[in-house]
Amino acid sequence: MHNGKVYLDCMPRQEAEALWRKALSSAGYFARLPAEEIAVEQALGRVTDCAVYAVQSVPHYNGAAMDGIAVRAEDTFGATERQPKKLRVLPAGGPILPGTCCVVDTGDVLPPGANAVIMVEDVHFAEGYAEIAAAAAPWQHVRIIGEDIVQGEMIVPERHVIGPADIAALLAAGLERIKVTAKPRVAIIPTGTEIVASRQELAPGRILDINSPMLAAAVQVWGAQPVRRKIVNDDRAALAQAVSTSLDDCDMVITIAGTSAGTEDYTFSVMSELGQVLVHGVAIKPGKPVVLAVCRGKPVVGLPGYPVSAMLTAELFVRPVLLARQGLPMTQPKQVEAKLARQLFSTIGVEEYVRLSLGNVQGRIVAAPLARGAGLISSLTRARGLMAIPAESDGLAAGTAVTVNLCSPKSELERQVLAVGSHDLALDLLGMHLRRHGGHVLSCANVGSMGGIMAIRNNEAHLAGIHLLDEETGEYNLPFVRRLLAGRKCMVVHLARREQGLLVAPGNPKGIRSLADLMNPGIMYINRQRGSGTRMLLDYELRRLGIDAGQIQGYEKEVATHMAVAASIAGGAADAGLGIRAAAQALGLDFIPIASEQYDLILNFADDDERREKIIAVLRSDGYRREVEALGGYDASRAGTVLWVD
Amino acid sequence: MHNGKVYLDCMPRQEAEALWRKALSSAGYFARLPAEEIAVEQALGRVTDCAVYAVQSVPHYNGAAMDGIAVRAEDTFGATERQPKKLRVLPAGGPILPGTCCVVDTGDVLPPGANAVIMVEDVHFAEGYAEIAAAAAPWQHVRIIGEDIVQGEMIVPERHVIGPADIAALLAAGLERIKVTAKPRVAIIPTGTEIVASRQELAPGRILDINSPMLAAAVQVWGAQPVRRKIVNDDRAALAQAVSTSLDDCDMVITIAGTSAGTEDYTFSVMSELGQVLVHGVAIKPGKPVVLAVCRGKPVVGLPGYPVSAMLTAELFVRPVLLARQGLPMTQPKQVEAKLARQLFSTIGVEEYVRLSLGNVQGRIVAAPLARGAGLISSLTRARGLMAIPAESDGLAAGTAVTVNLCSPKSELERQVLAVGSHDLALDLLGMHLRRHGGHVLSCANVGSMGGIMAIRNNEAHLAGIHLLDEETGEYNLPFVRRLLAGRKCMVVHLARREQGLLVAPGNPKGIRSLADLMNPGIMYINRQRGSGTRMLLDYELRRLGIDAGQIQGYEKEVATHMAVAASIAGGAADAGLGIRAAAQALGLDFIPIASEQYDLILNFADDDERREKIIAVLRSDGYRREVEALGGYDASRAGTVLWVD
Repeated sequence: MHNGKVYLDCMPRQEAEALWRKALSSAGYFARLPAEEIAVEQALGRVTDCAVYAVQSVPHYNGAAMDGIAVRAEDTFGATERQPKKLRVLPAGGPILPGTCCVVDTGDVLPPGANAVIMVEDVHFAEGYAEIAAAAAPWQHVRIIGEDIVQGEMIVPERHVIGPADIAALLAAGLERIKVTAKPRVAIIPTGTEIVASRQELAPGRILDINSPMLAAAVQVWGAQPVRRKIVNDDRAALAQAVSTSLDDCDMVITIAGTSAGTEDYTFSVMSELGQVLVHGVAIKPGKPVVLAVCRGKPVVGLPGYPVSAMLTAELFVRPVLLARQGLPMTQPKQVEAKLARQLFSTIGVEEYVRLSLGNVQGRIVAAPLARGAGLISSLTRARGLMAIPAESDGLAAGTAVTVNLCSPKSELERQVLAVGSHDLALDLLGMHLRRHGGHVLSCANVGSMGGIMAIRNNEAHLAGIHLLDEETGEYNLPFVRRLLAGRKCMVVHLARREQGLLVAPGNPKGIRSLADLMNPGIMYINRQRGSGTRMLLDYELRRLGIDAGQIQGYEKEVATHMAVAASIAGGAADAGLGIRAAAQALGLDFIPIASEQYDLILNFADDDERREKIIAVLRSDGYRREVEALGGYDASRAGTVLWVD
Repeated sequence: MHNGKVYLDCMPRQEAEALWRKALSSAGYFARLPAEEIAVEQALGRVTDCAVYAVQSVPHYNGAAMDGIAVRAEDTFGATERQPKKLRVLPAGGPILPGTCCVVDTGDVLPPGANAVIMVEDVHFAEGYAEIAAAAAPWQHVRIIGEDIVQGEMIVPERHVIGPADIAALLAAGLERIKVTAKPRVAIIPTGTEIVASRQELAPGRILDINSPMLAAAVQVWGAQPVRRKIVNDDRAALAQAVSTSLDDCDMVITIAGTSAGTEDYTFSVMSELGQVLVHGVAIKPGKPVVLAVCRGKPVVGLPGYPVSAMLTAELFVRPVLLARQGLPMTQPKQVEAKLARQLFSTIGVEEYVRLSLGNVQGRIVAAPLARGAGLISSLTRARGLMAIPAESDGLAAGTAVTVNLCSPKSELERQVLAVGSHDLALDLLGMHLRRHGGHVLSCANVGSMGGIMAIRNNEAHLAGIHLLDEETGEYNLPFVRRLLAGRKCMVVHLARREQGLLVAPGNPKGIRSLADLMNPGIMYINRQRGSGTRMLLDYELRRLGIDAGQIQGYEKEVATHMAVAASIAGGAADAGLGIRAAAQALGLDFIPIASEQYDLILNFADDDERREKIIAVLRSDGYRREVEALGGYDASRAGTVLWVD
């Protein structure tokens, strides 16, 4: 039976960081930086262990800086166009005696006796003599010893990340090998009996270890070398053994907690046995159950098992320690001010991290919160920004000005196109074309047609897909746009007509033929969220047919996209759901047509914004229309037609 | 004898870029992106060849999101604290029939019949029954199929750089291998008979190939794979052979011109033979002689041989083509507005690139131009910024507001300490300590003591080292500071007393004993620049002794640091020079004492700037004082004493 999990009182993040850093400092962890000697040519991106000084000057001899003749400057004084001087040309190498010169190429050693070079363009050669028409200043066109780098001079300081030009400078200054900080070795130990290492071992109830490869990659990005260990079952002795072995040959140990209740207790007790646990539980969300310990003078971190929690806590606690271990400064993320697109609730006493889509809408950066579950890895891949809701706040109202840490370069913001509204597979195709032709990135928040209209109304999105039937007029979309977006300076363009219908398992095993059959016993329905055009269509049709929604099992379970409906049915969790034919076709489901509807896009860009023109151009292209129709159930022949401009 | 080098008319940069890009586009170079399939776990930093779609949903089954019991929500309706409901606990796995439940751990499959999970904290277990005191909402604490990622959904778009979270998402969505763009292979062919590949082959007149390793590293930074070729002598057939072979197995060929006049002609004629030369000579400085060609549909670039020219032209012409070849967007460098510290002249008709030191001095960013020679690799390693002087400009006055492209993160600007003034080895040590204790980076421009005072006066530097003897009072430094920096809110702190004297070759082969001996025949002197304290000391002593400077051979050859003087003597280019004992000691020279002088620092920081306190703390530390005295000829016992505050 379950043990109730007991965390130590959750500690504020700053306090946890400070406590752990102090313990690591006291243990001398940041002072002991092991070094290794490597070839300069292999040193790109490595960090110098100590300052490196030139062992020879650059250049290491006085040389000609031009092609021409090497001369004694004093022999040339008085030469003019009208009274040129003649110097006898000696064989290469000199020495240059009064009245003589010799030919030099750029880079040649300046012959003894010479103290200047005259460019070949300014010399007339004839009969073994060089004729010059102007005096040379002493030391002109001569590169003297050490002009670039002087022997003994510092080439790169300590704790410097070696770049291409540094490699050239080090080689020029006579260095062939340099000492660099050895990359910290970071052991990564996944734990949990239910965790499997490969897709082949995957079965219901089994969870693929995606955390180890993710953290291994992150650790590489932070300059360290990941050492991946085998998965440890929920077995205290095995975990103790794995951590202890890793402490022998690594500079840091990360355990990734299994999701079962027992494992986290093991993590805590193993770390307590091997050293000192400083923090067990931090007042952050996601990531609360993190464990921070120092064992045998080295950091040991227990990360939570949900991927979003694991990644966030690694960023907060692993990254700074790895950078400090290498003697590198912490770089702060770039920040922007943005307008929060939707209300956010938060628990008082917990610092909550929210992943965000970002885009510049009509001159202001809009931050749209992504789904917040700790298990939603897609919220990490989609995030362009991250913000923290402070522990003392219970939430933020929509429209609040917030400070956002950027996850990608700021320049990318101008390429983001924020789509908020009804989901359609044709939007993914649009995104692909925009990316290919202009480097634009379409990010979609699926909040349904009405949600899309409200987002445009609040200037929180560039684009909204809608399919809303006005029951009075039988007209699609424009009645809603006229009512809700008058004066908003946006544009509506047509995308396609598409078929809506019931998605059912292949072969339709439950014999569903109409909406009325959804009331049959043993039929599990999967619904779309309120405010979505598809839900409104369902409710409209149910009312028309006099069907009581309360009679439909599963009516209360809502998902946000056509594909999520299809996936529920394909996975056997539901028997039927209303959605577009393309979703059925994508997952090989059967499809029972119910209605044909009109899917349009609202575009919200300034008139001179090239993104609007690009979108319309894509919609009107034959290639795009063909691809949309190939999804199944679409008529895209009029895609790109402008239906309304305000 | 030399052929006059003939360049095609130098083309404006933008025109050259456009012409070449157009030719490469026409040849289909940017369309043909070869792909390779690799393991997702190895994909960090690679670029997707095409969009990648989920092959399974995440999660791929309906599962418990909490530890607890799986129930039929309808069985729980009506349960309250006062009227709890009892459910019989079945063995794990179900199926859940009316009135029953079973225990589930987070991640477990939801048993058939169940549609909700109740947290273990809210359940009281007794005698085979679970007692619950509140109703469960349908689907509460259930992670449904596809909640995170739906089968068929796009995980990453095409031309996306894979990061750690992407790896996790791809693995979770059932991908084990993905197609990524193959790294372009870039052949790097150094040319020139005088070029050698290793330090062992180095001799006067020989030049070490530092360009190949530098460009190989740069090419790696730009996502491509360098393929380094052997050095090709100045031999047309050999060059043609090398380029042709490389065109067979590489995506781009770079030749690095030798410095001899003939080689560039070979480059041009070989490229003309193998394909089409589009550009021969661009109106930029450095980098004018670049050659851009398309041979067999691939780019071939002839880079100039001077390292600064090679690197700059590679940035301008190689990088954009490599990024485009990989389908990656060109990121624009970060820019800052800065005040130009010194006047810059430029040639009309040529776009000139200038490397800069940067630092925030009293609230304004100051850009101090570094030495501009194309051969000065140290100007690349020291540069924190780069600016272009437009072709139509003949120069910029000191104080001009300029736009600077940053070479390092903007946050680093606040850590820069700009030192301008007299050079001393003790400054290098100060820089090392500042870096170690605060991550500060000291960059020194050696313009002599008077130059340092003027830089402080113009708020163009944080720090200036000075050693200026006031002939009237015999006092050092302060008379000049009082006269020139009154009201400037700066501070003077003492650094050390140090010995100045004549540096001569080991064993003093020319028997030099005093300044008067510099007039002896056969003695070559090496001088310091006007405005430097050392030069002022020399001129003062010469005047005092009645020596005519015109009688000293080499008096007109000026270098900017003590170490450059020492290096000239160590390399045999000069016989004597005035400088500090530490420079002699560093290069094993003999030293003839002439004077003892006072070396002080002017500090120009706002009162609350922590950098000033850090500098003073370093100066006063025993460790620093010991290290300075170990350089030779210093008394640093009073380092850090404040001499003057305005």
